[in-house]
Amino acid sequence: MHKSKATRRRAKKVGLPAETLLYTGEREKNSIHITLTDYDAKHFEEHTLKQVDECLPYKLKPTITWIDVDGVHDPSILEKLSEDFSIHRLVTEDLMNIVQRPKCDDFGDYLFIVVKMLSYDEQENKIHPEQISIILGQKFLLSFQEESKRDAFQLIRDHLRTGKGKIRKMDTDYLAYSLLDTLVDNYFIVLEKLGDKIDLLEEELMIRPDKTVIEQLYQLKRELLFLHKVVWPLREVISSLARRESPLIHEVTVPYLLDIYDHVVQAIDSVEIYRDMLTSLLDLYISNVSYRTNEIMKVLTIIATIFMPLTFLAGVYGMNFKYMPELEWEYGYLLIWMIMIGLGAVMLVYFKKKRWI
Amino acid sequence: MHKSKATRRRAKKVGLPAETLLYTGEREKNSIHITLTDYDAKHFEEHTLKQVDECLPYKLKPTITWIDVDGVHDPSILEKLSEDFSIHRLVTEDLMNIVQRPKCDDFGDYLFIVVKMLSYDEQENKIHPEQISIILGQKFLLSFQEESKRDAFQLIRDHLRTGKGKIRKMDTDYLAYSLLDTLVDNYFIVLEKLGDKIDLLEEELMIRPDKTVIEQLYQLKRELLFLHKVVWPLREVISSLARRESPLIHEVTVPYLLDIYDHVVQAIDSVEIYRDMLTSLLDLYISNVSYRTNEIMKVLTIIATIFMPLTFLAGVYGMNFKYMPELEWEYGYLLIWMIMIGLGAVMLVYFKKKRWI
Amino acid sequence: MHKSKATRRRAKKVGLPAETLLYTGEREKNSIHITLTDYDAKHFEEHTLKQVDECLPYKLKPTITWIDVDGVHDPSILEKLSEDFSIHRLVTEDLMNIVQRPKCDDFGDYLFIVVKMLSYDEQENKIHPEQISIILGQKFLLSFQEESKRDAFQLIRDHLRTGKGKIRKMDTDYLAYSLLDTLVDNYFIVLEKLGDKIDLLEEELMIRPDKTVIEQLYQLKRELLFLHKVVWPLREVISSLARRESPLIHEVTVPYLLDIYDHVVQAIDSVEIYRDMLTSLLDLYISNVSYRTNEIMKVLTIIATIFMPLTFLAGVYGMNFKYMPELEWEYGYLLIWMIMIGLGAVMLVYFKKKRWI
Amino acid sequence: MHKSKATRRRAKKVGLPAETLLYTGEREKNSIHITLTDYDAKHFEEHTLKQVDECLPYKLKPTITWIDVDGVHDPSILEKLSEDFSIHRLVTEDLMNIVQRPKCDDFGDYLFIVVKMLSYDEQENKIHPEQISIILGQKFLLSFQEESKRDAFQLIRDHLRTGKGKIRKMDTDYLAYSLLDTLVDNYFIVLEKLGDKIDLLEEELMIRPDKTVIEQLYQLKRELLFLHKVVWPLREVISSLARRESPLIHEVTVPYLLDIYDHVVQAIDSVEIYRDMLTSLLDLYISNVSYRTNEIMKVLTIIATIFMPLTFLAGVYGMNFKYMPELEWEYGYLLIWMIMIGLGAVMLVYFKKKRWI
Amino acid sequence: MHKSKATRRRAKKVGLPAETLLYTGEREKNSIHITLTDYDAKHFEEHTLKQVDECLPYKLKPTITWIDVDGVHDPSILEKLSEDFSIHRLVTEDLMNIVQRPKCDDFGDYLFIVVKMLSYDEQENKIHPEQISIILGQKFLLSFQEESKRDAFQLIRDHLRTGKGKIRKMDTDYLAYSLLDTLVDNYFIVLEKLGDKIDLLEEELMIRPDKTVIEQLYQLKRELLFLHKVVWPLREVISSLARRESPLIHEVTVPYLLDIYDHVVQAIDSVEIYRDMLTSLLDLYISNVSYRTNEIMKVLTIIATIFMPLTFLAGVYGMNFKYMPELEWEYGYLLIWMIMIGLGAVMLVYFKKKRWI
Repeated sequence: MHKSKATRRRAKKVGLPAETLLYTGEREKNSIHITLTDYDAKHFEEHTLKQVDECLPYKLKPTITWIDVDGVHDPSILEKLSEDFSIHRLVTEDLMNIVQRPKCDDFGDYLFIVVKMLSYDEQENKIHPEQISIILGQKFLLSFQEESKRDAFQLIRDHLRTGKGKIRKMDTDYLAYSLLDTLVDNYFIVLEKLGDKIDLLEEELMIRPDKTVIEQLYQLKRELLFLHKVVWPLREVISSLARRESPLIHEVTVPYLLDIYDHVVQAIDSVEIYRDMLTSLLDLYISNVSYRTNEIMKVLTIIATIFMPLTFLAGVYGMNFKYMPELEWEYGYLLIWMIMIGLGAVMLVYFKKKRWI
Repeated sequence: MHKSKATRRRAKKVGLPAETLLYTGEREKNSIHITLTDYDAKHFEEHTLKQVDECLPYKLKPTITWIDVDGVHDPSILEKLSEDFSIHRLVTEDLMNIVQRPKCDDFGDYLFIVVKMLSYDEQENKIHPEQISIILGQKFLLSFQEESKRDAFQLIRDHLRTGKGKIRKMDTDYLAYSLLDTLVDNYFIVLEKLGDKIDLLEEELMIRPDKTVIEQLYQLKRELLFLHKVVWPLREVISSLARRESPLIHEVTVPYLLDIYDHVVQAIDSVEIYRDMLTSLLDLYISNVSYRTNEIMKVLTIIATIFMPLTFLAGVYGMNFKYMPELEWEYGYLLIWMIMIGLGAVMLVYFKKKRWI
Repeated sequence: MHKSKATRRRAKKVGLPAETLLYTGEREKNSIHITLTDYDAKHFEEHTLKQVDECLPYKLKPTITWIDVDGVHDPSILEKLSEDFSIHRLVTEDLMNIVQRPKCDDFGDYLFIVVKMLSYDEQENKIHPEQISIILGQKFLLSFQEESKRDAFQLIRDHLRTGKGKIRKMDTDYLAYSLLDTLVDNYFIVLEKLGDKIDLLEEELMIRPDKTVIEQLYQLKRELLFLHKVVWPLREVISSLARRESPLIHEVTVPYLLDIYDHVVQAIDSVEIYRDMLTSLLDLYISNVSYRTNEIMKVLTIIATIFMPLTFLAGVYGMNFKYMPELEWEYGYLLIWMIMIGLGAVMLVYFKKKRWI
Repeated sequence: MHKSKATRRRAKKVGLPAETLLYTGEREKNSIHITLTDYDAKHFEEHTLKQVDECLPYKLKPTITWIDVDGVHDPSILEKLSEDFSIHRLVTEDLMNIVQRPKCDDFGDYLFIVVKMLSYDEQENKIHPEQISIILGQKFLLSFQEESKRDAFQLIRDHLRTGKGKIRKMDTDYLAYSLLDTLVDNYFIVLEKLGDKIDLLEEELMIRPDKTVIEQLYQLKRELLFLHKVVWPLREVISSLARRESPLIHEVTVPYLLDIYDHVVQAIDSVEIYRDMLTSLLDLYISNVSYRTNEIMKVLTIIATIFMPLTFLAGVYGMNFKYMPELEWEYGYLLIWMIMIGLGAVMLVYFKKKRWI
Repeated sequence: MHKSKATRRRAKKVGLPAETLLYTGEREKNSIHITLTDYDAKHFEEHTLKQVDECLPYKLKPTITWIDVDGVHDPSILEKLSEDFSIHRLVTEDLMNIVQRPKCDDFGDYLFIVVKMLSYDEQENKIHPEQISIILGQKFLLSFQEESKRDAFQLIRDHLRTGKGKIRKMDTDYLAYSLLDTLVDNYFIVLEKLGDKIDLLEEELMIRPDKTVIEQLYQLKRELLFLHKVVWPLREVISSLARRESPLIHEVTVPYLLDIYDHVVQAIDSVEIYRDMLTSLLDLYISNVSYRTNEIMKVLTIIATIFMPLTFLAGVYGMNFKYMPELEWEYGYLLIWMIMIGLGAVMLVYFKKKRWI
């Protein structure tokens, strides 16, 4: 029930003055982790911050500073950080509002990117979204993860630490690319899960179609609606980055961004195809049910058409009229059996001809 | 029945000369309230006007003048006000026509914005629209609310009074933004209501689908059609404001307008997703009904297929033919029972095999 | 059956040399009325012409000359008029072809506008279209009405006569605006009629759905298809006028044209919403029928499931076997009644549990 | 089965080197007719050519030369002609490939236009397409008709001969316009045929819906799909001509091209509306069938519900128990009749109340 | 099950550092074949390479060098080749990823084109895709085929060898065109296969509709969804080439590219039409099933309506009441027969009137 929740969270803010900082998610217990990574091609430093202010000295250094905030439910921390990096108040407000649509806003000095991290929750059998916000500036990058207990960017941190790949030699835009790439790669895991479920559903529908199949189908449709809502705007986000409208994006990063763009388009393709397949499956289900109803009706009609006239005949000769000459005939009983069997046979031939049997 | 009413009201005007002032709503009894607010960063004044002319002195002052008119059913007041602020006659006409499509017209000296305030009427179980018109000029802003008994902008007035937030330091365009923001925030309350209703409908449909469910579904579809009609043009309205085609919109206000734009797009997303969900729910309902018809048919067919031949057999031995040897057999009755039970068992096995039971 | 007629009329022209003047409507008996109105702010003259040539002296005068032709089935009159005002032969041809799509062609010296006047024919229960062509030139305006017996522009003539409103002070483009405004206003009357019919249909469908409802629904769909075809191109017509691509449209008229544009967009909105509503109504009807079939099946199945086994039992004890011990029992009859009632009760409980009753 | 044939023909070419001349239609027996028409305002000449080379002297003359080739199944003729007029080899190849999509290619010196001539084959009850290719050059026009036995342009030849209309005074682009105009006019004859068929179908569906109706409906849908495929690209063809991207199109011809453009758009409109109508008719059919199934079910249920309990009662008193006190009562028989009639009446009242009768 | 596989393959890469070379297909046993072709108008050379480095001397020569790699599962070979021709690492990565969407990326010095080769697998009854990547550079062209056992370009190699056609006289872009042309031609063979299957399905559906028809229909829909996904992006690929955004494409090649473009558009048209036809076929199936259910219901209802009252009557006179005067009548039995036959006849007349028979 993603949708209704999303509007519910948004609705929370009604009546408050514009630019009020309000966390729209459910209150989280976990504390917020702030990790600072400072690096260039030769140098690498990593700290877990206790105070937001600790990051200030790094801001001035010519090295790249990446501050990753795990958990966005504490306004004071976000407010402090925003002041330190002179972030617009609307951005700070959006950081806490976890029901954002993916978007990319250009504030001149920095880009503000909101995207969704997706994972598949096996237990609840649905997609679990987590909002990730990225502020990409000159030599600094701030990232904010909705959930404090999980770190989506562990792998990138590893690459930075070991200096594998180009990442240490490139600018902040490449770091942003790496973060986005990780997110988009995760979409394919979710898509694979949904693909498996559709394959399973298809199989079930062919062999043993029952009511639960339709409810699963409906559930999958909802998940795909949600995925559609999340993936579509991402396309525009990546494409606006790749168009290099901001000087923060360097020419050398463009092929990488175009690569993500291709992946996003492929993900969109898959979502659309899955939706088409679910529609086809529903059609298959409905036509199967109609067909089976038809088959059942045939059985009923055949039985009724054969036995109703026969039962009637039997009823006739069960009547107690005084003068019923047939009853007295010696071969009356034999005759009636022959008539009844003949009648039944004629019916069967008729149904055979009509291709009902 | 929003739609038909809308055209009915519009139809009222046919045959009248162009630019006739005619109120297209139902005649309201309540009198019109006019509230004048005059402010800048340091200064704040608020009056309830009895005469339209009282606002004239404020017009010349360099402070920002906001005149809010509650109720648009009196042509004379609107005409007077329009003259005072040299508003085009077509605008005055549109102010009274409460079946406008949301739009933003640029008249050079001022912008004319028409939007809809939405609230959910719990009693009638439908969305209640109220037309809000805004005339945004150099240092003045006129706002017109269709209904005189309710003031949609109480909160903004409070912020102005207390000087909270930036509103007192900014120009008229920020005031217009605040009004629009309030409206759009209200959309999410309505969306939340509809979301709840859809969730409820979904639950009901799963457990106990009956005829009323479909009527509710149809009602919700109508509401969403109406919402769609109201929200879509709003997107264009906000986007044209944010493109700064008019010098009345300052650069500093653009991020705020883009923020509303994001909200409107999110509202549109929700409306579309709700519509898709209703379509899916209808499919779910129809396939459920088909499935249940199928199940019922099975029961009927099983019963008929078992008992029709048996009843026939019983009928046969209820016939009164003189010469029916079986009737004389000592174990005839036992035999016939065994045949009948055997026949029934064979049928059941057959149905079991066909997975009907 | 608008559609098929339209193509039929068009098909009439096949095989004729291009630019042949041919009236594509059904031959009209009524004679053609030509009304000349010549006016400026101070001066007003109105004549019914007997000869086309009578208009020539007015053509040279600096006043605005409006020639309104009622009936377009006489090639000679149209040809004469076209020559007098040097109108392109293709235009003359189009004037007689009453199955034009609404359009606006710019011929440099004049604009050629084709639109449809709509009215609702209560007797035939369908929309009655009438083609109106307007040739808007420097200081002259020619208008052509398909039907000679009705004058759609009586009201505008009245305004001109009395000098009410701005119309006498403005140029020909404002006159064209007034004509178009009258047409578009009439669309809302037709839309209101259709809206009423949909509301009625909805009510009928809820209370007493039968076969005629679906036929009415289909009829309404056809009307809306027709309306859609007529209104959509009008949007482009008005918008091209308002873009001022021709010097014949003055800046001062643009707000008026934009006002019509808004109305046309609103009409389009209504048509689309009505179409969506009809689709929803059809879904409602089909799901209602399915539901009722389901309900009927339940009744049948309950009756059959209860009485078939009972009738079978009764049949069994109606058999005439010699040795049927139960028949001899003193309380056999009572027992069988108890068994039968018990069986029936068990069935009822079972159906109750399955929520069939 | 247009579609599958089209791809089949295209598939013929696989594996052949690019630019191989291959006729993709079925081998035609008829010989190819070549007609040369040479004219200007004063002068007119018409010949049937036996040798392609005979046209060479006309090519150099300042008069307009129109060479019309009836039948495109002989590569040698087309190759020769192409060389004479220096036509690109890809064009020659396309001339023979009769499964082209309508298109307009600009080769600088000449325009290559491919369109479809349509006629309605009454016997096979389907649309019969014929590919027409036009090469429009400086003072020459080549036209190619797929079928050799029919001449689609007889009328234009007549106009040229008699010098009726403007055609002799205008350039080659006007001749091309005339050819295209003839083609498009024919579309309306086909559309009229389809419109008549839809009207007939509608009537049949209202009065006596049976299985063949649906098959006709499906057949019509296929025809419209085909028409849609042919007419849509034509719009782009005409519009690209009218935009005067090539100097071969003169300003004076533009209004004529725009006139065809209007007709094509009207044809597209009709195709779309016919498709919508067929969809509505299918809905009408399905809901009618559902409704009638429902009605039949009602009859069945009423009969079963009334007679099953009655038959059961009769069965009870047909039992042969020894002690059945009711049987001995003097008015037992009368009583049971009264009970049965009462029961039947109650049922009928119940059904009346439920609006089943 | 193309779709789900595609996402599954993509999902393999999650968690690996960006730009890791990983083959996403199933591990192939076959070794990789590398064929080098070096040619110009006069000169032709062809070698099967064992070492990638053997191609280096050809790179420097002014002749055109085409290196065709059959099989992309060995990272070392691709890496080596990429280095030799200074190909971007992202491209090398994409070469191995066989679940790419068709695309054309411009890397300045070379164009990177990804397309799909399609063939119809008769045994598995589905479309078999093979990814083909083309790197088009100054005087060199690298092509990569997913599968090592099949060579899709045998024909082009033959043309090069024999020097037939223009291919030897043109530049690398014409070679790329030839490769693409071969691919697109193959699409029509696949389309023909699908077209045949649809025709077959249509026939089966008309004559003997059963459950397997719907499953085949569903399977075809999946294939078309897949085809749609493959063909649509190709349109953009070809169109971007034909727009000559890169200097590697020469003016002379543009007509050829436009020719492929036409074919691709035609293929898209066919896919869309096939999809529409499948939808129509499904509608036909469903309405046929409904119709037949309706027919069956009629039979059942007629039988039940005739025999239920008759059986009831017979039951009545089978009752054992002591005083049943009718039983004693001399012509009672005859009378009851007459009544029953009369009743049956009335029913039949009624059904005849209702057009049920």
